[in-house]
Amino acid sequence: MPTEIPQVVIDRLPVYYRLLSRMQDEDRAVVSSQELGEALGVTPAQIRKDLSYFGRFGKQGRGYSVERLTKELRLILGLGRRWRLVLVGIGRLGRAIASYRGFEPQGFDIVAVYDSDPAVIDTSVDGHAVRDVSELGANLRREPVDIGIVAVPAEHAQEVITTLTDAGVRAILNYAPRAVQVPRGVRLERIDPVISLQSMTYHMTREDQSQSAPAG
Amino acid sequence: MPTEIPQVVIDRLPVYYRLLSRMQDEDRAVVSSQELGEALGVTPAQIRKDLSYFGRFGKQGRGYSVERLTKELRLILGLGRRWRLVLVGIGRLGRAIASYRGFEPQGFDIVAVYDSDPAVIDTSVDGHAVRDVSELGANLRREPVDIGIVAVPAEHAQEVITTLTDAGVRAILNYAPRAVQVPRGVRLERIDPVISLQSMTYHMTREDQSQSAPAG
Repeated sequence: MPTEIPQVVIDRLPVYYRLLSRMQDEDRAVVSSQELGEALGVTPAQIRKDLSYFGRFGKQGRGYSVERLTKELRLILGLGRRWRLVLVGIGRLGRAIASYRGFEPQGFDIVAVYDSDPAVIDTSVDGHAVRDVSELGANLRREPVDIGIVAVPAEHAQEVITTLTDAGVRAILNYAPRAVQVPRGVRLERIDPVISLQSMTYHMTREDQSQSAPAG
Repeated sequence: MPTEIPQVVIDRLPVYYRLLSRMQDEDRAVVSSQELGEALGVTPAQIRKDLSYFGRFGKQGRGYSVERLTKELRLILGLGRRWRLVLVGIGRLGRAIASYRGFEPQGFDIVAVYDSDPAVIDTSVDGHAVRDVSELGANLRREPVDIGIVAVPAEHAQEVITTLTDAGVRAILNYAPRAVQVPRGVRLERIDPVISLQSMTYHMTREDQSQSAPAG
């Protein structure tokens, strides 16, 4: 396997995996790069190039084996094992995350939930006992987790993330609308709808300007 | 302004904007590329290069004017106006979105909310009257919106998105865990925590493998 695979390619692999899993559930045996490209909005050439980073999955003119490609992508993405997650922050957003049914089938288990609000600590949310965030670091040292999901108010995000990474958490999914820092070697992904909206309004504004500009 | 700005740069602009807005709220007058880089986890050279696509904001050795840069980014990102949004799907996730206080200060107004569940249609959720999704297309033609937020179950996502784009919606923020297609010229952004988690587990798995592999 080559050492440097572009991040944009890596970001597409989970999307391939999801589509192929669904095809496998529907008992599809073979899929062409043409069909994958149409479903995902990229060219067949891009599909072939992306998958070629990981070995030779397809036979010329015969398409890809759905079963084999799904299985390989599953291993490449690290989904051949289960991952332990902790969720910090159980406000409205945290509750939506805790109740999301899409994590567990993909190998992601939320094993503990934390908050700072005395009114919710020791209550149960979607089957999770809510623990006191002041005990987060100590608990993680006893019961390590792989990934932290942060759904606290922006002003607390950095402090919570530092507690998580100091206790050995290696990956952070940050829902708080704030730029945060993690130590070298810790993975960080952001989920932020305003950032996504602004990326689209940038383009929409430019289109509007070019339409209203005088020709020539 | 050059015509082709890399998408990765555009994706960073909202992040710059958020940080600078906060600095402006704190009455900061000037910021260096060094400081911006540290806060955002990129190099000062990258900051200078990103911002150079949009003109000359900084003076050599004197840093950037926080006020001027914030104002310019605001215009570049299309935040000098308000944007009309419709939210489709008011389950647990949709409710978290409808109640999110981060949209309105950035110029994003959720002007209508839709669902297909007779039990919630015509009820009020966070001040929004829930409308019947079967009336979505007709209503949008009378009262156009700019952006659609889709928080429906995966199997309904494509149908809802087609209804939105057929009625003239130019940008879609898709929370449904399903690859969907939009017509040419329509913007599409995906928010999907499982995809973000799998992008991180890809890297974590490779790190684990390289650590457990025999040396040499």
